[in-house]
Amino acid sequence: MNVLIYNEYCHEREPGAAQETYPNGIHAAIAAFLSKEPDMRVRTVTLENVSEGITAETLRDTDVLLWWGHMRHGEVPDPVAELVQEAVLNGMGAVFLHSAHKSKPFMRLMGTSCSLIWRESGDMERVWVSAPYHPVAAGLGPYFELPADETYGEPFGVPTPDETVFIGWFTGGEVFRSGCAWQRGWGKVFYFQPGHETFPVYYDPNVQRVILNAVRWAKPDRRTENCMDCPNPPKAHTGRI
Amino acid sequence: MNVLIYNEYCHEREPGAAQETYPNGIHAAIAAFLSKEPDMRVRTVTLENVSEGITAETLRDTDVLLWWGHMRHGEVPDPVAELVQEAVLNGMGAVFLHSAHKSKPFMRLMGTSCSLIWRESGDMERVWVSAPYHPVAAGLGPYFELPADETYGEPFGVPTPDETVFIGWFTGGEVFRSGCAWQRGWGKVFYFQPGHETFPVYYDPNVQRVILNAVRWAKPDRRTENCMDCPNPPKAHTGRI
Amino acid sequence: MNVLIYNEYCHEREPGAAQETYPNGIHAAIAAFLSKEPDMRVRTVTLENVSEGITAETLRDTDVLLWWGHMRHGEVPDPVAELVQEAVLNGMGAVFLHSAHKSKPFMRLMGTSCSLIWRESGDMERVWVSAPYHPVAAGLGPYFELPADETYGEPFGVPTPDETVFIGWFTGGEVFRSGCAWQRGWGKVFYFQPGHETFPVYYDPNVQRVILNAVRWAKPDRRTENCMDCPNPPKAHTGRI
Amino acid sequence: MNVLIYNEYCHEREPGAAQETYPNGIHAAIAAFLSKEPDMRVRTVTLENVSEGITAETLRDTDVLLWWGHMRHGEVPDPVAELVQEAVLNGMGAVFLHSAHKSKPFMRLMGTSCSLIWRESGDMERVWVSAPYHPVAAGLGPYFELPADETYGEPFGVPTPDETVFIGWFTGGEVFRSGCAWQRGWGKVFYFQPGHETFPVYYDPNVQRVILNAVRWAKPDRRTENCMDCPNPPKAHTGRI
Repeated sequence: MNVLIYNEYCHEREPGAAQETYPNGIHAAIAAFLSKEPDMRVRTVTLENVSEGITAETLRDTDVLLWWGHMRHGEVPDPVAELVQEAVLNGMGAVFLHSAHKSKPFMRLMGTSCSLIWRESGDMERVWVSAPYHPVAAGLGPYFELPADETYGEPFGVPTPDETVFIGWFTGGEVFRSGCAWQRGWGKVFYFQPGHETFPVYYDPNVQRVILNAVRWAKPDRRTENCMDCPNPPKAHTGRI
Repeated sequence: MNVLIYNEYCHEREPGAAQETYPNGIHAAIAAFLSKEPDMRVRTVTLENVSEGITAETLRDTDVLLWWGHMRHGEVPDPVAELVQEAVLNGMGAVFLHSAHKSKPFMRLMGTSCSLIWRESGDMERVWVSAPYHPVAAGLGPYFELPADETYGEPFGVPTPDETVFIGWFTGGEVFRSGCAWQRGWGKVFYFQPGHETFPVYYDPNVQRVILNAVRWAKPDRRTENCMDCPNPPKAHTGRI
Repeated sequence: MNVLIYNEYCHEREPGAAQETYPNGIHAAIAAFLSKEPDMRVRTVTLENVSEGITAETLRDTDVLLWWGHMRHGEVPDPVAELVQEAVLNGMGAVFLHSAHKSKPFMRLMGTSCSLIWRESGDMERVWVSAPYHPVAAGLGPYFELPADETYGEPFGVPTPDETVFIGWFTGGEVFRSGCAWQRGWGKVFYFQPGHETFPVYYDPNVQRVILNAVRWAKPDRRTENCMDCPNPPKAHTGRI
Repeated sequence: MNVLIYNEYCHEREPGAAQETYPNGIHAAIAAFLSKEPDMRVRTVTLENVSEGITAETLRDTDVLLWWGHMRHGEVPDPVAELVQEAVLNGMGAVFLHSAHKSKPFMRLMGTSCSLIWRESGDMERVWVSAPYHPVAAGLGPYFELPADETYGEPFGVPTPDETVFIGWFTGGEVFRSGCAWQRGWGKVFYFQPGHETFPVYYDPNVQRVILNAVRWAKPDRRTENCMDCPNPPKAHTGRI
């Protein structure tokens, strides 16, 4: 299967915690563990080359797209966001990570504010599995912990998820629907909250397990090419009518 | 309560069946029966003056917006569509009629293709009530019939509705989820399929009953002003922790 | 409107914290604040007289039923549980409180395990509003706190709620979908987690506000009498077919 | 995978159309086409031996259970229905066929009336695919037709399905959500409407395709054994709190 990782790749090129944590970028950290899967071909794209890397052609050749962005959501061109949205509606899977809740493609697919409350106080997070039967929760215990993460809190401005797979608990007193699944058109969409750029969250084995599970879950069995069309079929003979 | 009706108002100004059926426009036909309600103040806006008629101010003063459009969806300015979307997310109700399934505000709120199949063969439609308990179905029997309507058929490319209130049956052999309800942010959204411009559907007492019910159902009890914000609250004291 | 409160009323008749906290029973504490509403007629029933107090007749005369039970769920007769289930399906509202998650009527209406994890360690609970637009959340801030409550934790074995209105955060590290709404047949169902018998939770103003909101939200506009029937209508003339 | 087919097997043992159509019973007709799948081991059980054929042990050894019943729903012992319900909640898949909408296990899992309207007038049915992306719809066109079937009509008294995969259109003027999917606990549940005992519906290639798809879709990846339990874990250390 073909996996494409989009990472804005801005925080990690500025001196500081993000660069120290992800010296080659968050996309590289994610690609590293996904690439170990024998059946996965992983490619990456960053904001710098987003218009060349995300095209109708590359998306047609992508089973699942992962998306990480934060400070420059607005610089992703609208036509790129629209291509991603249509590709999902035609069947491509999509996994949105952490601050991608305000990315253009996610907001287009949800249709809502995608707002939340947040705080950078290095809270410990305990991620509870609220849907243990869900494929994205396979191999996890009742919960797992992250020693430090950015705090995200409710209310999360999304349409009621088809399934809420994880609910996060933060030492600072917040809760968050940290893993949410939606069907949109022919495509599967997953949102996963952990993952701030200044914490080594993407090196955590449980987080890696969730992302791997989400990619496998979002992979389409079948896809279409023309979900945006409104066909005008003739009246079909209805037998005995 | 304040009701605002948007109608594209193009079909009805060209000679032909639409003009004969709705000589003053579909918006006038809808305004006529809604205005009989003592508690409703009804205003209308058409494509010609959409940028003046649909503003942050007029929407703040609108409890429920109805939307009819078809041939010129693309001419509604994006900022207007965005204002409508945000007003709904902040609590304004919205009722989308017939071919508004491909209008910009509806597509933004759904995030999906909103596609369907269609045919103009004057099929009789029988509209079944699939959720008789729903407020939008109040006062109706098990079904009602429209002697002629444009045929819309599945698959309807929308997120699974919170509730499917009506399912339409057409003599030509199609079925359609003709009445669908969604919560989006603080706002309630209803889609109602009957209503082609060349048939006198909006004079039908059952259709009028549904639209009136939908307007009352979509009226917000409360609304917010800042659903798009992502607040950054300090850590609150959590008592015994 | 007519409100009926069922309380098992066993804990509170044994010496100890429950009796000290609710000397006249939890039902009396809830009846006390609901009865202040001018439009509410409140009656109560306990396990002792459940078969006389909950009948087809009393339920037909009940707009909303509240249910509290814990140690003697099994002693509620099956026919009583069935009557409650059918009354809800015919339109009566129902609000299930705390340990009523394992009551017979709630389990019948959900069809699932209704299981959860729990601990009596007097954790502080912070109840977050995850659906601030919902009528049951009216008048609340972003969250409210209970100094001590029994801890309930995910996974909560219920069908995906139509809306998750509250999510609870506990000092002990758990999270729970503390306020959940479902439509079942013609009836509205709400589950609200706070409320252990040994803590003065039902005297808390925010808890009282939620219960009052839930009762008003669950009140039916209309109800039916025969939702269990499967009618066998003749073929209706379909006009032009 | 292990498939277990329950068929009441009463209609087919009385002289008449059912016997002529399914001389060895509906279960035999379904087993015949499922057994052709190399990976499927198919067993059957009828009302006569239901208490021996459906036990905790046989269900533990069953990936997916199919259920057909009609005139003797009431004779299925409650403990058997309860075993089936718990097996589904623990992960076993279940496919309910046609008149099984009023079977004990289906009604327990739904919690609602499961009512509908019906008529035996041999209407032609056109089954529309409303969720073409769904695994149960794989290999089908936009719709398929059955020359004659019992008519089922809305309203269908079930909780809003997670996904409505098929909507049926009948020449007599009815519509019905003919294919519905729900997650219940760890298990997947599918309801499929076609299949009256006096029509050769189960020999239809499209119907066989749907049933085969539904069985494969409902097969659990993982299952649990104790979903009914409410564990009482100690307070876990939460690191930095």
